[in-house]
Amino acid sequence: MTERFDGRRPDQLRQVRFTRNWLDHAEGSVLVEFGKTRVLVAASVTEGVPRWLKGQGKGWVTAEYEMLPRSTHTRSDRESRKGKVGGRTHEISRLIGRALRAVIDYEALGENTIVIDCDVLQADGGTRTASITGAYVALADAVSFLRGRGALKGEPLKGSVAAISVGVVDGLAVLDLPYEEDSAAEVDMNIVMTGDGKLIEVQGTAEGEPFDRAVMDQLLDLGAVGCAELTRLQAEALAR
Amino acid sequence: MTERFDGRRPDQLRQVRFTRNWLDHAEGSVLVEFGKTRVLVAASVTEGVPRWLKGQGKGWVTAEYEMLPRSTHTRSDRESRKGKVGGRTHEISRLIGRALRAVIDYEALGENTIVIDCDVLQADGGTRTASITGAYVALADAVSFLRGRGALKGEPLKGSVAAISVGVVDGLAVLDLPYEEDSAAEVDMNIVMTGDGKLIEVQGTAEGEPFDRAVMDQLLDLGAVGCAELTRLQAEALAR
Amino acid sequence: MTERFDGRRPDQLRQVRFTRNWLDHAEGSVLVEFGKTRVLVAASVTEGVPRWLKGQGKGWVTAEYEMLPRSTHTRSDRESRKGKVGGRTHEISRLIGRALRAVIDYEALGENTIVIDCDVLQADGGTRTASITGAYVALADAVSFLRGRGALKGEPLKGSVAAISVGVVDGLAVLDLPYEEDSAAEVDMNIVMTGDGKLIEVQGTAEGEPFDRAVMDQLLDLGAVGCAELTRLQAEALAR
Amino acid sequence: MTERFDGRRPDQLRQVRFTRNWLDHAEGSVLVEFGKTRVLVAASVTEGVPRWLKGQGKGWVTAEYEMLPRSTHTRSDRESRKGKVGGRTHEISRLIGRALRAVIDYEALGENTIVIDCDVLQADGGTRTASITGAYVALADAVSFLRGRGALKGEPLKGSVAAISVGVVDGLAVLDLPYEEDSAAEVDMNIVMTGDGKLIEVQGTAEGEPFDRAVMDQLLDLGAVGCAELTRLQAEALAR
Amino acid sequence: MTERFDGRRPDQLRQVRFTRNWLDHAEGSVLVEFGKTRVLVAASVTEGVPRWLKGQGKGWVTAEYEMLPRSTHTRSDRESRKGKVGGRTHEISRLIGRALRAVIDYEALGENTIVIDCDVLQADGGTRTASITGAYVALADAVSFLRGRGALKGEPLKGSVAAISVGVVDGLAVLDLPYEEDSAAEVDMNIVMTGDGKLIEVQGTAEGEPFDRAVMDQLLDLGAVGCAELTRLQAEALAR
Amino acid sequence: MTERFDGRRPDQLRQVRFTRNWLDHAEGSVLVEFGKTRVLVAASVTEGVPRWLKGQGKGWVTAEYEMLPRSTHTRSDRESRKGKVGGRTHEISRLIGRALRAVIDYEALGENTIVIDCDVLQADGGTRTASITGAYVALADAVSFLRGRGALKGEPLKGSVAAISVGVVDGLAVLDLPYEEDSAAEVDMNIVMTGDGKLIEVQGTAEGEPFDRAVMDQLLDLGAVGCAELTRLQAEALAR
Repeated sequence: MTERFDGRRPDQLRQVRFTRNWLDHAEGSVLVEFGKTRVLVAASVTEGVPRWLKGQGKGWVTAEYEMLPRSTHTRSDRESRKGKVGGRTHEISRLIGRALRAVIDYEALGENTIVIDCDVLQADGGTRTASITGAYVALADAVSFLRGRGALKGEPLKGSVAAISVGVVDGLAVLDLPYEEDSAAEVDMNIVMTGDGKLIEVQGTAEGEPFDRAVMDQLLDLGAVGCAELTRLQAEALAR
Repeated sequence: MTERFDGRRPDQLRQVRFTRNWLDHAEGSVLVEFGKTRVLVAASVTEGVPRWLKGQGKGWVTAEYEMLPRSTHTRSDRESRKGKVGGRTHEISRLIGRALRAVIDYEALGENTIVIDCDVLQADGGTRTASITGAYVALADAVSFLRGRGALKGEPLKGSVAAISVGVVDGLAVLDLPYEEDSAAEVDMNIVMTGDGKLIEVQGTAEGEPFDRAVMDQLLDLGAVGCAELTRLQAEALAR
Repeated sequence: MTERFDGRRPDQLRQVRFTRNWLDHAEGSVLVEFGKTRVLVAASVTEGVPRWLKGQGKGWVTAEYEMLPRSTHTRSDRESRKGKVGGRTHEISRLIGRALRAVIDYEALGENTIVIDCDVLQADGGTRTASITGAYVALADAVSFLRGRGALKGEPLKGSVAAISVGVVDGLAVLDLPYEEDSAAEVDMNIVMTGDGKLIEVQGTAEGEPFDRAVMDQLLDLGAVGCAELTRLQAEALAR
Repeated sequence: MTERFDGRRPDQLRQVRFTRNWLDHAEGSVLVEFGKTRVLVAASVTEGVPRWLKGQGKGWVTAEYEMLPRSTHTRSDRESRKGKVGGRTHEISRLIGRALRAVIDYEALGENTIVIDCDVLQADGGTRTASITGAYVALADAVSFLRGRGALKGEPLKGSVAAISVGVVDGLAVLDLPYEEDSAAEVDMNIVMTGDGKLIEVQGTAEGEPFDRAVMDQLLDLGAVGCAELTRLQAEALAR
Repeated sequence: MTERFDGRRPDQLRQVRFTRNWLDHAEGSVLVEFGKTRVLVAASVTEGVPRWLKGQGKGWVTAEYEMLPRSTHTRSDRESRKGKVGGRTHEISRLIGRALRAVIDYEALGENTIVIDCDVLQADGGTRTASITGAYVALADAVSFLRGRGALKGEPLKGSVAAISVGVVDGLAVLDLPYEEDSAAEVDMNIVMTGDGKLIEVQGTAEGEPFDRAVMDQLLDLGAVGCAELTRLQAEALAR
Repeated sequence: MTERFDGRRPDQLRQVRFTRNWLDHAEGSVLVEFGKTRVLVAASVTEGVPRWLKGQGKGWVTAEYEMLPRSTHTRSDRESRKGKVGGRTHEISRLIGRALRAVIDYEALGENTIVIDCDVLQADGGTRTASITGAYVALADAVSFLRGRGALKGEPLKGSVAAISVGVVDGLAVLDLPYEEDSAAEVDMNIVMTGDGKLIEVQGTAEGEPFDRAVMDQLLDLGAVGCAELTRLQAEALAR
């Protein structure tokens, strides 16, 4: 059987860990780890909604993603110092927001806003998938916080969300790529799914040669395996 | 059979038109139209490459996308006036660049840079797919320009690229969505393929309910049909 | 008689063309061409006025000008990417706004705002004068749109506006300078006039040697000829 | 005879004062006053030229204009705090630079750069014309400084420059408008001339009704009177 | 006795001058000079307070500091052109604001805002201390202006404020350092005190070697001497 | 004896913890905790120095400080999204840099650059002092890394640095203020000292009433106690 450089099976996740309530102030927070990738997710609840939503009885969920300058192998400049947010940062922030919004019932949330901050403390591949997967956990805690205060109009979570990367490395379809695999991948795909196995988002890119439909199918299968396992781990963490 | 609001079949493209050499100064240019969506694509050739690439004998291709303020139904503020480029603009610029780079042989291009500017003059859905599809035509003309000057080291185009949107509207999988369908779509997907039917990029999002694998498969099929037809129209335009 | 490089007489305009309703969404739009200079002008109507004008029963007209990156002979960077709008862009935007406001009756316009966007698709000298001349046509169409909706309190257009460049090239006073003449001009002047021959704006600059009053007078005469001809062409276009 | 609100004749300047060497560090400096308008002009000399000019044996002169926040009747926000320079500021900076460059021989200046900073300490109309008029004095002192160091290749000043505002107020053509007149003017014009009476720049705008050629001519006459008087005062100041 | 390069005693201020009402429009203004350091301070009064303070019956005082580009020995770029305010500028603006707020009774001020602008026209060390010392004078005049209009609810000035720099140069503790001493200082400290000798702010930094407590004490003593003398001079100026 | 709200003695630190090597990629890193205040410090080593230092055989150390949006009790906007770095952030970044540079021998460091990033994960008062105290530990590890590679020219650390806040709360001088005390403090002071008890920086501010010299002395004494204890804990951590 083809072996991966870190000894994992092709369809095996890295060690995944959720440390809930890592922060004292945030209404929901989790330190999520996918191997060496470490993302601090904070869910901040505020009463009320942005102006353009006012008076409709609906809530709002949004997300921001950013990497600390030395989360990477070599230091990157801070976007605050550059005075503008880069394209990749924007793109991932938008992806996380879309992923979460797919399972939110805004009516049930009432006129409350939840902002999810995903700050990458250490990056080793899969920062956007770890962010989404952790964000669901922090979001669930923030929703519990609102429920405890009697501030909800129903159950705002219609399901759970998890995300995983899949790709083709040296011709082999693999799950949950660390930096070493990611930087060598021929195809790179991120898959976001609900806890009951439906697709929310699929983003696949040929990094080298364009790929055919069979590879596409294989990667979708692999992603389903990974998301199912993450869903199980999320449930476990939230049950603690 | 289910009919679309504009009378098209589910697997039918809007009228697609390429007007090459729409600009007098640019080394390659095309006004590409997908129905009412109208994008002006200019390919600018410059000798030399960005500093970080110098001395490696390779070329560089990059892309920028932007919408004119009144391309849309209601006017949007200019990003130059806001002092920053929005997330969506960044994201699409990056997508176009990746799509083109998938068929470029940088060694063959030599130390030349081609910048592709996609400016949306009128938007009616599918601006990113029209941009990519038109960009390939402008790129091909820019490559011909370089060939005419004897500035190439080989054939830099390893294939052609086309892109199309697919989606689910009122439960029906459809091809090439105009604004009316796009804004009502349950699932929205953009597919970028090579002329020989391989995938370069797949970006699918559940706008409403998460979708299952069968829908995913159906949309991939539809996208393949659309890209094949666009490939034929690109070839026709380039043969004129 | 002294001949110009493109065979025109000193007091002859380039071929001027107005293609009205070039856009489907905008309340007024025109593709204006002065020879190879091509500007897309969109007039966007919105009900209401900026906050500082509210409740006075008056309207507002403003303009923005920008060049596409590859409108020029060699590509320029986008101002949105640079994060700031250049001095020349600001200056021309302000000039266009002033020119239009000189013929607007704000009371008659009612509390409506019209934003004029002038986007230079191709630049071959005279982009600001083509913008102003086209802007009047788009503005007239936007006013008709408002009239059709019964949203006016009177006739907001007190007259028409046209603009033309004049200059001294190789000692010869000439009208409507393309890039080749513009870049070699000793004196460069832009003249904005009403349809009945009054001056709205005169901006003349010695690019090389300072010039005397006789040259000033000659250029003002030439500008009057050009604006009168443009006024005729605008009327013709609006009559179609 | 028609009287002006401050008792001046129509063709009379306000009290003009030049205090040279107002700064200790700058190579040339002057506090220029046109009535209550007070502009501090500093000319900074540096060896060498911007990169794009290097190795051509020519010098460079550029100018920046800015208003202190409380130079005006009511305080304005700082452009540094707004994070961008306004259109008017850009426009005037460019105008001052063009005005000075019209009398500079870059070859004679050698590879030296002179930056002219015009900071408006108090504004009462005519800040751009006071800036240009004062800038010439500071420039002349900076040139003397370079001459003293033997850093010139010839005489870089081909002439002198002065500027004045003219306008029509209550139907009367007047010279050198303070704020009260400026804000009520029907026509507003700035005229930049050389010491020997040639025109460098003419910028006239109808603030209210468009104006006819006879008014244009009258204002040009008035401007010539004002610039001639300013030229005399500059010479006097430089002779001290 | 150890002599300073300019002949002053270690505990002697440079010549300090206050020229009140240097500006015609500002409600309070002073040109303050500490030797060659020259700062123009303007106090601008506006009715009302920032939104977050409304309805509490309290006023607001804030300050902005900036250096003209050629205030320094060699020209610095304008922060407005750089598009952002530097760290040092921010820091000093905040310091001036804090210093003034320490002697303000916001209740007595009523719902009025006073903005203090400190613009350094020429810098020769001690620009922040001259700014604070001058700012108090301009503030006092602005308060008188409000008093004259009957807009106060009591006496908003609980005391006066002055500031001075102290430092160790060549092992000698000295008062009021000009640039030559400042740039060579081993320890650099700014002390802000009330007119009755209390401390508002102490900011000391080892520029070279860390310093011991005895030096700290000596500098605090020296600062008290300087602030007392400045308090006397402020009172004198305000009595004129 | 007067008791503090958390039971500490006036001269007692909160629980201080250093977790070294919290990051896998950084050459030095520490998670430093002062009670609930938690700062992640990363020291990044790069060969070479900024351009303006090149060829002098000296190294460079600089620091950046930033707070995560939800480090605080209520969420703050990201400075990267606001497009500019706030005054407080700038000020603290500069303070940390100065503090470290006071103990660095740049000659011994050789032409190497160390960038210290202090990212506040959770804020409960004293974030700048925790940052400085942790930064020394990360810096020491980065220096060890350079020593291990033989990249040093001597011992670049001339001593150690620690920092602590002191203040007056309800009339009582206290050490190491958490948010509750900090927000109620009458006087707030930050003291930076070397391991051998010398002062590097003193920054004291009257938040309410100005304070007298006796209070100043008492706070300096208290700061010395705190810094001595932190020096001991740093040494212990570095010995592990």
